[in-house]
Amino acid sequence: MKVSEILKVIDVDVHNELKKPQDLVPYLPEPWKTRVAASGIGMMGSGYWSPVGGMRKDTKPPGGGVEGSDPDYMLEQLLEEYNMEYVVLTGILYNISATHDPDFTAAIASAYNDYLIAEWLPRSDKFKGAMVVSTGDPLLAAREIDRIAGHPDIIEVIISSATREPLGHRMYHPIYEAAERHGLPIAVHPGTEGTGGTGAPTSAGYPTRYIEWHTNLSQMFMAQLTSVVCEGVFVKFPNLKLVLLEGGIAWLPHLMWRLDKNYKALRAQVPWLTRLPSEYIRDHCFLSTQPIEEPDNPKDLIRLFDMMDAENILMFSSDYPHWDFDAPDAILKRLSLEARKKIFYENAKKLYKL
Amino acid sequence: MKVSEILKVIDVDVHNELKKPQDLVPYLPEPWKTRVAASGIGMMGSGYWSPVGGMRKDTKPPGGGVEGSDPDYMLEQLLEEYNMEYVVLTGILYNISATHDPDFTAAIASAYNDYLIAEWLPRSDKFKGAMVVSTGDPLLAAREIDRIAGHPDIIEVIISSATREPLGHRMYHPIYEAAERHGLPIAVHPGTEGTGGTGAPTSAGYPTRYIEWHTNLSQMFMAQLTSVVCEGVFVKFPNLKLVLLEGGIAWLPHLMWRLDKNYKALRAQVPWLTRLPSEYIRDHCFLSTQPIEEPDNPKDLIRLFDMMDAENILMFSSDYPHWDFDAPDAILKRLSLEARKKIFYENAKKLYKL
Repeated sequence: MKVSEILKVIDVDVHNELKKPQDLVPYLPEPWKTRVAASGIGMMGSGYWSPVGGMRKDTKPPGGGVEGSDPDYMLEQLLEEYNMEYVVLTGILYNISATHDPDFTAAIASAYNDYLIAEWLPRSDKFKGAMVVSTGDPLLAAREIDRIAGHPDIIEVIISSATREPLGHRMYHPIYEAAERHGLPIAVHPGTEGTGGTGAPTSAGYPTRYIEWHTNLSQMFMAQLTSVVCEGVFVKFPNLKLVLLEGGIAWLPHLMWRLDKNYKALRAQVPWLTRLPSEYIRDHCFLSTQPIEEPDNPKDLIRLFDMMDAENILMFSSDYPHWDFDAPDAILKRLSLEARKKIFYENAKKLYKL
Repeated sequence: MKVSEILKVIDVDVHNELKKPQDLVPYLPEPWKTRVAASGIGMMGSGYWSPVGGMRKDTKPPGGGVEGSDPDYMLEQLLEEYNMEYVVLTGILYNISATHDPDFTAAIASAYNDYLIAEWLPRSDKFKGAMVVSTGDPLLAAREIDRIAGHPDIIEVIISSATREPLGHRMYHPIYEAAERHGLPIAVHPGTEGTGGTGAPTSAGYPTRYIEWHTNLSQMFMAQLTSVVCEGVFVKFPNLKLVLLEGGIAWLPHLMWRLDKNYKALRAQVPWLTRLPSEYIRDHCFLSTQPIEEPDNPKDLIRLFDMMDAENILMFSSDYPHWDFDAPDAILKRLSLEARKKIFYENAKKLYKL
C-alpha cells in the first residue's frame, strides 16, 4: 500500500532545475543580463568574470573549436605572423593543482602530458612543451616528471601559482628535486587564485570583481618568491630555475629591496642563505613579459627595468590566445636592440637549451 | 560509596602543565633554546617570531615598564632628540580588529580611546592621537567615531590592515562615512596578519618565518588599496583620506600601472570610477615612510619616488619604539630640501590640519 493512500503528503525540498543558466536572462536587468547571456552564472571556476571575455576574439579557429585549440591555426596566426623561432606551449591545466583529489589530478596531468606529446609537439619543430604536474601530491608529481622529462621537446614543468601552502614549503621539494635532476625549469602560472582548495586570492580576503582579482595576481608571485627564496630552495637545488609567468614585473625591485633589508636584520632565521635574497632571485629566476605594465611615462618602465637587470631576467611572452595578448611588435620598443635580443630570444634559448 | 572502592580506574586525559614555557629551555638545542628563553613558545599573537625582538632595545623606560609606555621618556627620547613638532600616537590596539567578538573589541576600543585622551594627550601639545576602532562591527565603529571624534587632539582613526574581507567591501562603509563626516583620515596599520579571525597572511598561505611574514606585509596594502579604489570608496566619500602606515612604498608605481592598465580594459566592472584608479590614489592616499626601502643604489629609490610623486604622497614616520625605527636624520638624504620639507612636515600638517 502506498503511503499516500492513508496519509496526506507535503514534500518540503524539491529542486526545480534551470534548463540552462540563460533561462534567467529575460528576468535580469543590465549589466547582469549581458553577463549571464554570455557566460552563465559562474565563470573561470573562480567566479571572477571578465567583461571582455577570456580570449582574444579573433583567435577562434576557422574550423571551429576553442580558441587556441587548433595547432595549425596557431602556427599561422601566431608563429608565422610574428616569425617566431619557438613557442612554449603552457596549456591551461596547471589549474589542476587547485583541485582537491590528488589522485584524480595526477591522472589528469599524465593524460594531458601524453596528449601534448601525441597531438601537439609532433606538429611543428617550433612547438616546445611545458609538462604539467599537480602540486596536490608532490611525490606523484615527481614520479610524473621522471616519466615525461626525457622527451626532447618537453622543456619545462608548469604548476599553478595558487596554493594552500607557500611554494617554498618542504612538502613541495620532491618536485624541485626531480625538475633539477632532469634539467627542467619550474614555471609558475596564475589563474586559479581563489578556486578549489586554494585560499583566498588576496591576503585581505576575496575581492569583488575580476578587475581586482586580476590586479592582485602579482601578489601571489611576491608571496611565492619570498617563500621559495627564504626556505632555501635555491640552496638545496642550486641548478633549479624558476620561471614566473604572467605575474607582472614592476614589483620585483620593491620585493628585492624589502627582502634584502629584512635579510640584513633577520638573517638568523635563514642561516642557509649565504648571499642576499636578491642574488638568488637574479641567479635563478626569470619573469615573462606579459601583461607588461604601461606607465603614463614609458621611460618609467625603462628606469625600473634598469633596477632589476631586466635584460637578463625577462623573457618574452604573448599569452596567446588570451584577451590581454602582447604582440612582440607592440612592447619594449624603447629598450636597446641588445636588450630586446636577449628578452625576445636569447634568454629563453639559453634557459631551455634550444 | 566511591567508585574506586569497587572499580579500578585509569584516567586517559590528565593535563600536566608547564609552570612556564621556559621549563622546556634545558631540553632544547639552539637556536630554539634562545628563542624560547626570550619569548616562550608563541610570540606576537601571529606566531611569527622576530629574532631581533619587536622593540628597539634602548627604548625601555628607565623607570620600568614596556617600551613606548612612558610619555615623558618618549618626549625626551623621540620628540626632543629629533626636535619634532608633533607626533601621531598610533598605539598598538588596531590589532583588536583581528579578534572574533565584536562587542568585546568595541569595548576595548572605547577604553583605549578614553585612556589615550586621559593619560597621553594632556601630557604634551605635541601629542596627537589616532583613535582606534574595531572593524569587527562597522556600525559600532562608526558610533565610536561619533563619540570620540570631537576631541581636538584626535586627528585620525586607525584600523588594522589585516581583515577577513577586503576593506573596500560595503560592510565597512559606515566607518568611512563617519570618518569623512568628522574630517578624520583613516589610517591602516599592519601587524595582525594571520592572527585571530583574519585569513592567511599571504594569498599563497602561511609562510614559515617572521622574515617572510614581514616582507609579505606590503601585499596586504596592495590588496586593500585595490579593493578600496575599485569599490568606489573615494567616489562615495570624496573627502575621505587614507593613510597607509608601515606598508612599504616602492610597490606603489607597480600597482598604479597595473590597475590603470586593467581599468582601461575592464572599466565596465567599475562604472563609478570616472578617472584612472591612480588618480584616486594620488588624491586620497598617503603612505608613511618607515620601513623605507634601501636599494643598493640609493638613486634607484629617488627614481622610483619620481614615478609616484612621492613628495606629495609620503609622510615621515619613525615607528618608535619598534626594532626597525627610522630616524629623520637617517633617511631621504638624497631628496631635495623642498621634497623633504613636505615629507617630514608639510604633508602631515595639511592632512591633519595642525
